[in-house]
Amino acid sequence: MDLDQYMTDVGRAARAASRHVAASATNARNTALLAARDALDAARPALAAANAADMERGAANGLDPALMDRLELTPARVDSMLEGLTQVATLPDPVGSISDMNAMPSGIKVGKMRVPLGVIGIIYESRPNVTVEAASLCLKSGNATILRGGSEALESNMAIARCLTLGLQQAGLPEAAVQVIETRDRAAVGRLISMPEYVDVIVPRGGKGLIERISAEARVPVIKHLDGNCHVFIDEDADEDMAVAIAVNAKTQRYGTCNTMETLLVHASIAGSVLPRLADEYLSAGVELRGCERTCALLPAAIAATEADWEEEYLGPVLAVRVVDSLQAAMDHIEAHSSRHTETIVTRDHARAMRFLREVDSSSVMVNASTRFADGFEYGLGAEIGISTDKLHARGPVGLEGLTSQKYVVLGEGQVRS
Amino acid sequence: MDLDQYMTDVGRAARAASRHVAASATNARNTALLAARDALDAARPALAAANAADMERGAANGLDPALMDRLELTPARVDSMLEGLTQVATLPDPVGSISDMNAMPSGIKVGKMRVPLGVIGIIYESRPNVTVEAASLCLKSGNATILRGGSEALESNMAIARCLTLGLQQAGLPEAAVQVIETRDRAAVGRLISMPEYVDVIVPRGGKGLIERISAEARVPVIKHLDGNCHVFIDEDADEDMAVAIAVNAKTQRYGTCNTMETLLVHASIAGSVLPRLADEYLSAGVELRGCERTCALLPAAIAATEADWEEEYLGPVLAVRVVDSLQAAMDHIEAHSSRHTETIVTRDHARAMRFLREVDSSSVMVNASTRFADGFEYGLGAEIGISTDKLHARGPVGLEGLTSQKYVVLGEGQVRS
Repeated sequence: MDLDQYMTDVGRAARAASRHVAASATNARNTALLAARDALDAARPALAAANAADMERGAANGLDPALMDRLELTPARVDSMLEGLTQVATLPDPVGSISDMNAMPSGIKVGKMRVPLGVIGIIYESRPNVTVEAASLCLKSGNATILRGGSEALESNMAIARCLTLGLQQAGLPEAAVQVIETRDRAAVGRLISMPEYVDVIVPRGGKGLIERISAEARVPVIKHLDGNCHVFIDEDADEDMAVAIAVNAKTQRYGTCNTMETLLVHASIAGSVLPRLADEYLSAGVELRGCERTCALLPAAIAATEADWEEEYLGPVLAVRVVDSLQAAMDHIEAHSSRHTETIVTRDHARAMRFLREVDSSSVMVNASTRFADGFEYGLGAEIGISTDKLHARGPVGLEGLTSQKYVVLGEGQVRS
Repeated sequence: MDLDQYMTDVGRAARAASRHVAASATNARNTALLAARDALDAARPALAAANAADMERGAANGLDPALMDRLELTPARVDSMLEGLTQVATLPDPVGSISDMNAMPSGIKVGKMRVPLGVIGIIYESRPNVTVEAASLCLKSGNATILRGGSEALESNMAIARCLTLGLQQAGLPEAAVQVIETRDRAAVGRLISMPEYVDVIVPRGGKGLIERISAEARVPVIKHLDGNCHVFIDEDADEDMAVAIAVNAKTQRYGTCNTMETLLVHASIAGSVLPRLADEYLSAGVELRGCERTCALLPAAIAATEADWEEEYLGPVLAVRVVDSLQAAMDHIEAHSSRHTETIVTRDHARAMRFLREVDSSSVMVNASTRFADGFEYGLGAEIGISTDKLHARGPVGLEGLTSQKYVVLGEGQVRS
């Protein structure tokens, strides 16, 4: 296979398809999603066979058990892919709405119309269900997609893609609106991120290493989520029961998610009473505590934290704890160490809550709520293609709207400029 | 001078200052703008001396007369810098507004707060007044700025920067909120666009060559405006008088601007009557016409266009003209050749107008109005730092809002996730 030629063909086809999808009726896109769902349901045996081939190949190649687990398409996972398609079909169409239409002194009316981005490249690792998730969100928002999944999931992804193609055909939409890259050649990623003429944005989903590599090398804009080093700050004015509930939930409700708290900051004037209560909860949940000097003085079970602990996204039952002397010191710590994902203050003081909201520079900033709420579904976006830790374009959970842009529309009645 | 160290110091100072500016009161930023205006007014002799030094150096180096003209700080240009500062001070502050605050099923309230981007790097060519324009818009929107002007304007830019510093001092804002790079070393640009740790976005202002080079090499997001190859399409259903007025205005009202029409598309069924009328107007205005075969058959004065003419941004009294058989053919031409800046349809047909608005993928799409309206002031933005031909983040004229982003704010009363 001539990879360059292949990728150019994929890109060119996506660009052409994107124009049709952008101009398509909402109904056509919904029909495609629901027809793809039915096709997937009918293709369960074929999906199982393709997935078995990937699993066999993975086992032969000594694939990591965690990756093997993520690769497997169980019947329950297929069910949830089908549900996802139904759900995306029922979401409101973000495309075409016109907002802020105002009359100008010249007599023209100026507004903004929401439009698809064009062609979206998705780069992800082993989970084949991402193929359906990403393709459905991109299609719903009027975009064409090029999907580059993990090479270990190629057979599964191609089997899924065949069902998506059937859905597109039934709706009269171009097949190239959703394309899975059909090669294991790693150089395909390099090409995908270097074709600004065919690809408008790249959304990488995976580990920090993958995303950093792609961001450094891409010649196309990247909507990226690097890591989630999230903080909870318990202010001196906090309601202690509330502080305990939030700090326990933010850490222990799920360890492996990006919106899990990784460092707890506690105001010195409340640390003596709240930290021992929290330590009991954490220890009974099996959470290891790594504290600053003052934390260790209060909590015999805590071990000494090092500078590296303030930077770490543990994604597991470990928590860094630091006692600080003021709101300012808490915000300074966050400024220095946060990955700018999500931070929460627990306080009863309105002015300090407002200051935290205003001054903390993270994609989600919260008062008296668990960091675990930073999520597209909890924010009412209906779905989420990822959480952006970038500042431009999309920040925080990215739903359908984040896959669109706005262009200016001007309505005149013959006005010319004088 | 150790350039790397110098640029690192500038970047670090900007990052620290950005935090203070972002948290500052609207009043403080307005005070700084007005105090800078007064300082510039008082410093007219010093500005004139610095500018004279630049002009002398430019003359000695054989600088192009057009560049010499743009370099000159006439009293009228200083007046307009002062006016600009007054005007930016009166614009509404985009920072801190919270929108779309909705209650979620979990009980949390989720909204979006408008926040500054952080540190904005501006790279521009000889006009020293850009220093004031860019710095004032960035400061008003709560950002710190690093300004890299043309090396030929360094003395003028540094003299202006001293006045901006005085303004910041009087308002109690950090001086590093506005920094001019004080070296002619061209390597400074390379460093500025490769410090994502200190710079959040680059806005290049200048010729297409400069902007392409910066975009290709930048490791920081770039809000860019490449070129303006704008189209007017006269539909078969157009009011002919209106079509003539718009097509003449779009081309001849000003030749050198990016929103000037460069190619005129005319529906075949109206070309025979409207093109000769237009040709009279263009020829009397001294506009050279380069037409497709059918155009040349209708207009003896037109010379034959080549493929290159459809791509060209003439920025002068030249116009490419093509007769097309349908709205679809017009949109296909635009799709193939436009720089996605601004396109207009002249028509009386509502359905076709709506189709053009929906399907044409440019930053501004217009019905029955001159392309010359694509401008921040005409759109009611109050000011403009440039016009973006990108799709992500900001598209079309970029005002204060384009220099900000939105973060999620969550207001809870102790909610945890279940």
